[in-house]
Amino acid sequence: METPLYQRLIAPAQTKIVMIIMDGLGGLPREAGGQTELESATKPNLDALAFQSSLGLTIPVAPGITPGSGPGHLALFGYDPIHYEIGRGALEALGVDFEMSPYDVAARGNFCTVDTAGLITDRRAGRISTAESSRLVELLQTIKVEGVEYFVRLVKEHRFAFIMRGSGLGEDLTDTDPQATGVPALPIKSRDSSSRKAAQFTNRFVSEAGKLLADKTPANSILLRGFAKLPTLPSFAEIYGLHAAAIAVNGMYRGVAKMAGMEILDVGGDTIADELSTLEKHWQEFDFFYLHIKKTDTAGESGNFDGKVKAIEEVDSYIPRVMKLNPEVVIIGGDHSSPAVMKFHSWHPVPTLLYSKNVRPDGIREFGERACLHGGLGIFPAVNLMPLVLANAGRISKYGA
Amino acid sequence: METPLYQRLIAPAQTKIVMIIMDGLGGLPREAGGQTELESATKPNLDALAFQSSLGLTIPVAPGITPGSGPGHLALFGYDPIHYEIGRGALEALGVDFEMSPYDVAARGNFCTVDTAGLITDRRAGRISTAESSRLVELLQTIKVEGVEYFVRLVKEHRFAFIMRGSGLGEDLTDTDPQATGVPALPIKSRDSSSRKAAQFTNRFVSEAGKLLADKTPANSILLRGFAKLPTLPSFAEIYGLHAAAIAVNGMYRGVAKMAGMEILDVGGDTIADELSTLEKHWQEFDFFYLHIKKTDTAGESGNFDGKVKAIEEVDSYIPRVMKLNPEVVIIGGDHSSPAVMKFHSWHPVPTLLYSKNVRPDGIREFGERACLHGGLGIFPAVNLMPLVLANAGRISKYGA
Repeated sequence: METPLYQRLIAPAQTKIVMIIMDGLGGLPREAGGQTELESATKPNLDALAFQSSLGLTIPVAPGITPGSGPGHLALFGYDPIHYEIGRGALEALGVDFEMSPYDVAARGNFCTVDTAGLITDRRAGRISTAESSRLVELLQTIKVEGVEYFVRLVKEHRFAFIMRGSGLGEDLTDTDPQATGVPALPIKSRDSSSRKAAQFTNRFVSEAGKLLADKTPANSILLRGFAKLPTLPSFAEIYGLHAAAIAVNGMYRGVAKMAGMEILDVGGDTIADELSTLEKHWQEFDFFYLHIKKTDTAGESGNFDGKVKAIEEVDSYIPRVMKLNPEVVIIGGDHSSPAVMKFHSWHPVPTLLYSKNVRPDGIREFGERACLHGGLGIFPAVNLMPLVLANAGRISKYGA
Repeated sequence: METPLYQRLIAPAQTKIVMIIMDGLGGLPREAGGQTELESATKPNLDALAFQSSLGLTIPVAPGITPGSGPGHLALFGYDPIHYEIGRGALEALGVDFEMSPYDVAARGNFCTVDTAGLITDRRAGRISTAESSRLVELLQTIKVEGVEYFVRLVKEHRFAFIMRGSGLGEDLTDTDPQATGVPALPIKSRDSSSRKAAQFTNRFVSEAGKLLADKTPANSILLRGFAKLPTLPSFAEIYGLHAAAIAVNGMYRGVAKMAGMEILDVGGDTIADELSTLEKHWQEFDFFYLHIKKTDTAGESGNFDGKVKAIEEVDSYIPRVMKLNPEVVIIGGDHSSPAVMKFHSWHPVPTLLYSKNVRPDGIREFGERACLHGGLGIFPAVNLMPLVLANAGRISKYGA
């Protein structure tokens, strides 16, 4: 992929940037003619900040596309989320909040049933219950092999995420799942020499799993498919010259931030207050802070309109503490919308606030979906946010004379 | 062309979509400070629908480009109108409302004058009158040859559209028009083997035409150029999983819809009322209905401001009947602007309304060019409309985790 112009013009500066991402921030009105979650919230600090800021709405990936948090975050961090696709196995691991490292190869796992001849009779082991699966996952987690570390994480029913961690593990592996019954599971093969070691370790795991599960009918074997590492991204240091840190509680977001080369800070708790204290504690050490708020999305996805409003109000209460640090640039946005009325992620553009001393303020006294429609940032692809952030931070030099 | 992301994420759903295209919908004020045709119209139903919808303006092809209806419609249907260019001959045929099929090869035709030695003396036969040309076109239409069907349609003055229909006809043919005088017309040659049959049938037609016209000075011969079939598009069924139907009176729009694999419904009349009845009659049979309104453009192109206002008001009166069918998604838009004051197509963005239960309503109580400027869809390329339509219809699955 060609290097974007702004990345060719990056210049150093002594400026600090705080990007606060409220997961699933965008919403919809609860009833016709009503207000969204953000519009309903009492948020004097965010509204006051809006007046000094430029507002707009981000399209996370592309019009009409409902993004997962992975691609949503890649775009916010300035990486084209269509070019940098996250593979199936890595998605499964991130989806259960496993904090993937660059040394990890992940796969999607199924418990399955095999007969005495080793032929698959049910690729989903009768869709065993999540409770039953949970016990078997614990059993698989006991498998230890010299030179590699295995992680097994429950997804639900017959599904689990399998991750192996070690040096020199390639991802170019064939599936064990033949996608058919009446045949045996396939041995894993490497498609390139750099994945040979990974193939050996995976086959070893499958064989150990077979022994442990032998008497656990119907889930007496496993299938693995979609092996993938995290995509390799150029780091924030390389492309932006930013020394960046991530403040996030959940593994998925820590994993994505790690992909971008951010340092993952120890939050020492799981509240927004803990996250704020972490920001304050490490303020001197970094140029860029990504601070992730999970509660907004959790409420949105569970259809809890009022819960999402409250989460936004809680974030609002911490804004004075953020501003007291005197950051040069503050972004308040989201990785996608999660309207409580839809109980799911959605494609709707996400309200976004960009504060700096250099923005052209819109003169709007409210931070909300419809207020942002009138803002100076317009409706724009999320991947264009970082150039604006860096420009406001004095970190992009002039192009041409 | 790479498959757009949203097409890779298409998911089935039991939802119905109605796309009402008012041809040349966008307009301009009649006098400075005045209102456009759409803004002038009394349209209580469209205004009420706007309040439950998201509004915006489409850029049909690219900024500053005045599109023909062909590319304007391709974009609305989600096909890149620059990638899928409609060849000159096909444009000529569609332009006179000839309903092209995938088996047709069309060319642009000129009546011309040749001397006794067969050398061209006037490539336009003295620009003979349309009335005179009309009689000659009728004459040419009598040419019959086994294994092929010929169609000749008057354009104006010395110009006509030539179409041949048959199986196995390629379009890769050289012109007969040498673009010069003092030389003979060229025989048609095929540039590839799949066009050989088409070359033979065309040469046969030219020779028969020469005999029929021999004594019709000045128009005693013909020239053909720009041979083209319709571009081959992936169908709505293939790319969207939509079982789609077209309700249109004019051949051009039926031809473009056929290109997209839509079923062309028999309207049984040529009024908007007939089109509405067709929609109601076939409601159970399809997922997607494209309904084309010609009157707005006809009025716009003839400079009839009030006529265009009336056409919009007539469409407005049928909106309750559309909504009574309970469609999940309704689009009201246009393929381009045709301001009555310009008496022509124009490049101006086209007001667009997207209704569904899942849109984020803008809270705007009017459907008009300037009202749409404040809408949540923004000003966007028309080719991005289908992804939004499909998202609102629950027909695009999530990207990533």
